[in-house]
Amino acid sequence: MNNTRINKQSAKDTKLRIMSLGGLQEIGKNMTVIEYGDDIVVIDAGMGFPDDEMLGVDLVIPDISYLIKNAHKIRGILITHGHEDHIGGVPYVLSQINVPIYGTRLALGIIEGKLDENPPPHDPELYTVEAGDFVNLGVFRAEFIHVNHSIADACAIALKTPVGTVFHTGDFKLDVSPIDGKMMDITRIGEIGRGGVEILLCESTNAERAGFTPSERTVGSSLERIFAQYESRRLIIATFSSNVHRVQQIINASANHGRKVAVLGRSMINIIGAAAELGYMDLPDGVLIDISDIKRYRPEEITLITTGSQGEPMSALYRIAFDGHDKVKINSNDVVVLSSSAIPGNEKLVGKIINALVKNGVKVVNDSTEDVHVSGHACRDEIKLMMALTKPKYFMPIHGEYRHLYANKEIAEFMGIPSENIFVSELGKVLEIDRKGARFNGTVPAGAVLVDGAGVGDIGSVVLRDRKHLSEDGLVVVVATIDAVGGMIVSGPDIVSRGFVYVKESEDLMRDAKRVAEAALERALRGGRRDYANIKGAVRDELAKFIFKETKRKPMILSVIMDV
Amino acid sequence: MNNTRINKQSAKDTKLRIMSLGGLQEIGKNMTVIEYGDDIVVIDAGMGFPDDEMLGVDLVIPDISYLIKNAHKIRGILITHGHEDHIGGVPYVLSQINVPIYGTRLALGIIEGKLDENPPPHDPELYTVEAGDFVNLGVFRAEFIHVNHSIADACAIALKTPVGTVFHTGDFKLDVSPIDGKMMDITRIGEIGRGGVEILLCESTNAERAGFTPSERTVGSSLERIFAQYESRRLIIATFSSNVHRVQQIINASANHGRKVAVLGRSMINIIGAAAELGYMDLPDGVLIDISDIKRYRPEEITLITTGSQGEPMSALYRIAFDGHDKVKINSNDVVVLSSSAIPGNEKLVGKIINALVKNGVKVVNDSTEDVHVSGHACRDEIKLMMALTKPKYFMPIHGEYRHLYANKEIAEFMGIPSENIFVSELGKVLEIDRKGARFNGTVPAGAVLVDGAGVGDIGSVVLRDRKHLSEDGLVVVVATIDAVGGMIVSGPDIVSRGFVYVKESEDLMRDAKRVAEAALERALRGGRRDYANIKGAVRDELAKFIFKETKRKPMILSVIMDV
Repeated sequence: MNNTRINKQSAKDTKLRIMSLGGLQEIGKNMTVIEYGDDIVVIDAGMGFPDDEMLGVDLVIPDISYLIKNAHKIRGILITHGHEDHIGGVPYVLSQINVPIYGTRLALGIIEGKLDENPPPHDPELYTVEAGDFVNLGVFRAEFIHVNHSIADACAIALKTPVGTVFHTGDFKLDVSPIDGKMMDITRIGEIGRGGVEILLCESTNAERAGFTPSERTVGSSLERIFAQYESRRLIIATFSSNVHRVQQIINASANHGRKVAVLGRSMINIIGAAAELGYMDLPDGVLIDISDIKRYRPEEITLITTGSQGEPMSALYRIAFDGHDKVKINSNDVVVLSSSAIPGNEKLVGKIINALVKNGVKVVNDSTEDVHVSGHACRDEIKLMMALTKPKYFMPIHGEYRHLYANKEIAEFMGIPSENIFVSELGKVLEIDRKGARFNGTVPAGAVLVDGAGVGDIGSVVLRDRKHLSEDGLVVVVATIDAVGGMIVSGPDIVSRGFVYVKESEDLMRDAKRVAEAALERALRGGRRDYANIKGAVRDELAKFIFKETKRKPMILSVIMDV
Repeated sequence: MNNTRINKQSAKDTKLRIMSLGGLQEIGKNMTVIEYGDDIVVIDAGMGFPDDEMLGVDLVIPDISYLIKNAHKIRGILITHGHEDHIGGVPYVLSQINVPIYGTRLALGIIEGKLDENPPPHDPELYTVEAGDFVNLGVFRAEFIHVNHSIADACAIALKTPVGTVFHTGDFKLDVSPIDGKMMDITRIGEIGRGGVEILLCESTNAERAGFTPSERTVGSSLERIFAQYESRRLIIATFSSNVHRVQQIINASANHGRKVAVLGRSMINIIGAAAELGYMDLPDGVLIDISDIKRYRPEEITLITTGSQGEPMSALYRIAFDGHDKVKINSNDVVVLSSSAIPGNEKLVGKIINALVKNGVKVVNDSTEDVHVSGHACRDEIKLMMALTKPKYFMPIHGEYRHLYANKEIAEFMGIPSENIFVSELGKVLEIDRKGARFNGTVPAGAVLVDGAGVGDIGSVVLRDRKHLSEDGLVVVVATIDAVGGMIVSGPDIVSRGFVYVKESEDLMRDAKRVAEAALERALRGGRRDYANIKGAVRDELAKFIFKETKRKPMILSVIMDV
């Protein structure tokens, strides 16, 4: 009895805690943690791409040390959809903690592929849900709600908690004429709103853009025009492999125009296979052919669907453009359609491919000349609609750089949410909600864990600083063997450089550098120095001074002094 | 007599040769060479920016070995305008050959500043010309013709040659309402066209864009709106320092609204100073104030004009955004206007600044929300006008990536120039014109010379490849001293790494790597190997294999073996 009362008492004091481990003030590695007492639910476990400063890094995942520490509380990871920035971190999370994963069939299908490549230490617990499903997770009850996005079967999540409903939009847009006929379930969202939403966590990617995002179907109309215009030429269409509906439209247009379709690029082949198997795509009989069979048809009877719409240097389109693809040789009868837009930072890569294609006489069609791409994210008016339907008490913009979060905050203010109820947060910052209100209170560890090769988190700022230094002016290594007791040079100093100057044309410089190092070493030894650190430092400093004077460059200088 | 006849005969056979040493299939380092017999005229001597592969490179200039070899033939370098991609190479050219330079006052003023910093071995011969001037250069006669562009006093050049007129557009746009009142001299261009143009060399930057480029004056109207809307807030406006008319409009708007103007950024201060002194700008009395004096005014009485519109990390705006500027602290009363558009490749840098500004509560206005920028380059309809006026027999697109040159070729075809008379060229390719026609014939050396610190051309593909390798996975150095005769290790092997792993957290890995190197070294010595190359190679290969197995990384491995 007493016991129960205490529990009730403590329950009254328990606060809902919301914190993002990824996706705030950055694009990518989305991960939101919602905690109440002894229960934690995680929404998404994404990966991000390294920025320009992260030289040599393959990908970035959230720092999940808070989840590892509280693994016993985690009731599940809920996946909103199957994009890399929402699921790419799953293998890394499961390698460290064993928690159930809930998501729609397509998302879990893609996750399974990843787990096959990187099997976790435990058998993964993957639970398939459908939009409309409810899942009980400790004190929480999650509802998956259908939204439109640039991948099929995307969901928002309404999480019932002891302090009220948390509505997490995932990534969404409103498409009133979607390819699969399933509009975002605004009816259900409205019902949830009528029942009361404590806080709305809303994506911010397009919060700076006015109006509504056009329907995916507009791309279909453009494709029809392009297929008609170029009916006598081979079509090569690049898009995001995960955009199942886009691929469906390309296949439909091809079938309508009597073309066979061959697919290029590993991820494109994988996703079309998975999507077809799971029933997300409708492949008309006999339309798909193997890439090896394209020679059996005339060029105008062929559509190639390929990866590489972002100019990725290892992609099929890149190899096609630079003539390194064994199955596809381009010529001036080809039309390449980039059914995509360049993600910021990729403009130059995409431009490089366009130049190479045009140089080969290929006609290039992209989103600057035709409506061959639409975004998958809500623009301002769709965000307003989401707010109008959910009518949240509190608001927290998620998924975006600071400018996007801030633009989303301005939309919320326009919609009448009081400024003091809007929380622009940052990674690891804890938003606490209870009966008395909402406030920031404390932080949990959060940040970027860098993945490079097999190493997860074993490189940090020192390593990156060194890589940057090495990349800018290269390296000079000076090596000598000394007899520390006798105070004399036994061998060397030898000088080796890489990435500094073209050595064969800089023999004088290298010879002089060797002399400088030798003099510095002798001086240090004559001065009676016996500690390596000092001797090494003296040689390095003298050499650095000399090299900067001669070249105005500052290569990394390593001095290695050995004792016999 | 005989002599004369021979000369006439050879003159009949002499061909006009046109070749670009920069600016074809690339943006930047523009340089066109026009040769006839013993006379050469060069148009522009620009610099370019390093691409993503050119790690650590400061800037890129054309390979001018052809000019050095033929220095005695060069009658002059004609400068079309004072942008870096047209004049940035001048100090490097003059450091190697002594040739006269012709240009308008503003261009020469900017060049003089550069030559003060990098004085050439000879006194430079700089000759000021004005639009309308003629200059005799050996067999050539050059006429400078006024065009509109995003810098004042830009010119096209009509070069009379023994085979006809070569018309070089420089960079241009048509502005029917320019700030300085001087429209592109289409009347004179039409007269030259009526007289016959053998070949038009036309810039291609905006050849993919339909229509006409808007007038610079449209920016003035937007600025007026912004000044009215934010009359109670401080304005900070970033733009290209060389855009004298833009700066003039900002100063005018400030004066109209009773604001004082302070200027930030070295290049901005220099150019405004030079432009005012040379009469290109009209500075109303008492409007300009020193940055130190801004505290004496209320924020809404101040406009700051600054560099950094491309997000350059050392610029004034960057320091302001990241709170490192000693004179300007931003706050939520500030409005920053980016009166510019991001040059491809700079989008992320610009985005970084916007995020930092928004985070500090600053309102940011850019060209995605207001018409605060117009291009300085001709769109398709202006290029058509240029073709209609000059009516050239032959056409060669210049200044652009391949896609731009190709788009320009398509415009020429649309305008009725026969395809066989259009020459899409490449660096160093020689276009030869004589009475019989025009054709490509041979090449001259051409390419990119990389400038890094004090070094001009001393780094090439090997150095860049090493820098790239070092930047991706860092470096492992293994050093040992051996007694080659005795076949034994005297000292080491020691292992040093940089940019590879965080050593303190990878002690096991480094210890194991040392053991692997030691074993490989002992095996090599036991095997009786005495040649360093073999021993070094064996140690390097074993270590590389071990490291890849453990980390899936491929750092650069340097093995240095010394003999006592």
